[in-house]
Amino acid sequence: MAVDGLPVSASAWLLHPQLAADTSPVCDLVLSRVLAMNAAEYPWLILVPRRAGVVEIFDLGDDARLLMTEIAMTSRALKEVTGCDKLNIAAIGNMVPQLHVHIVARRIGDPLWPKPVWGMAHPSGAAADFASFIDSIGRALANSG
Amino acid sequence: MAVDGLPVSASAWLLHPQLAADTSPVCDLVLSRVLAMNAAEYPWLILVPRRAGVVEIFDLGDDARLLMTEIAMTSRALKEVTGCDKLNIAAIGNMVPQLHVHIVARRIGDPLWPKPVWGMAHPSGAAADFASFIDSIGRALANSG
Repeated sequence: MAVDGLPVSASAWLLHPQLAADTSPVCDLVLSRVLAMNAAEYPWLILVPRRAGVVEIFDLGDDARLLMTEIAMTSRALKEVTGCDKLNIAAIGNMVPQLHVHIVARRIGDPLWPKPVWGMAHPSGAAADFASFIDSIGRALANSG
Repeated sequence: MAVDGLPVSASAWLLHPQLAADTSPVCDLVLSRVLAMNAAEYPWLILVPRRAGVVEIFDLGDDARLLMTEIAMTSRALKEVTGCDKLNIAAIGNMVPQLHVHIVARRIGDPLWPKPVWGMAHPSGAAADFASFIDSIGRALANSG
């Protein structure tokens, strides 16, 4: 549906269907939706700024700084919850153009260590463990508000 | 050498020797040193915040927002110079703990597309082409200041 001749994507943000299919929602921050991906060995969050038509970080203008605040907050929550050794953070978008930032908790000795996780296979874990992870991250983010 | 019992790393920033070995300097921004890596098919820059002892983005405190401004500025310069289709940006640090942010220009159809470049082989290009790239990026960043 078009509004005043503009495509909907120019007037209203919608989560890309591939991101919706691959993840579960955690919560909304001021700018970004926080999503979780079920990848057993790699606790994995994704931030998606709720701004239509944004592909590159510089498309965000002044909101890029708010995105960084939310990356820092979410990274800290992920580290608290998992006790990980290192955070791996990336904006890639070669497959899904809607700007999204991966925040992945890594342990020294995890199956892919020290290689990055992107472009690699990462099997899902048990549904109950994933639900518990989402709950823990949601509570950690609520407390860091 | 220690200063008042602190290791030097807590009092003075030094570029990690592995980053120094793998790259050539482009220029210094307010916060970050800009480095270039010679990877022919993938024009490749690295930002290193000049703050001692910083490993994760959240270690930067308020400077994280300045880092994001410099990521946006450097990404835009890299896109101007290369005319790339997509920017790939990441802070990984599994091998070199000193916080550094990769900013890589990708073309649709480049040898690894759409896979990420990290953890993959990427041969060097001609020294003259690399010197010309460094010069172009330096001028683009000077003009965007």
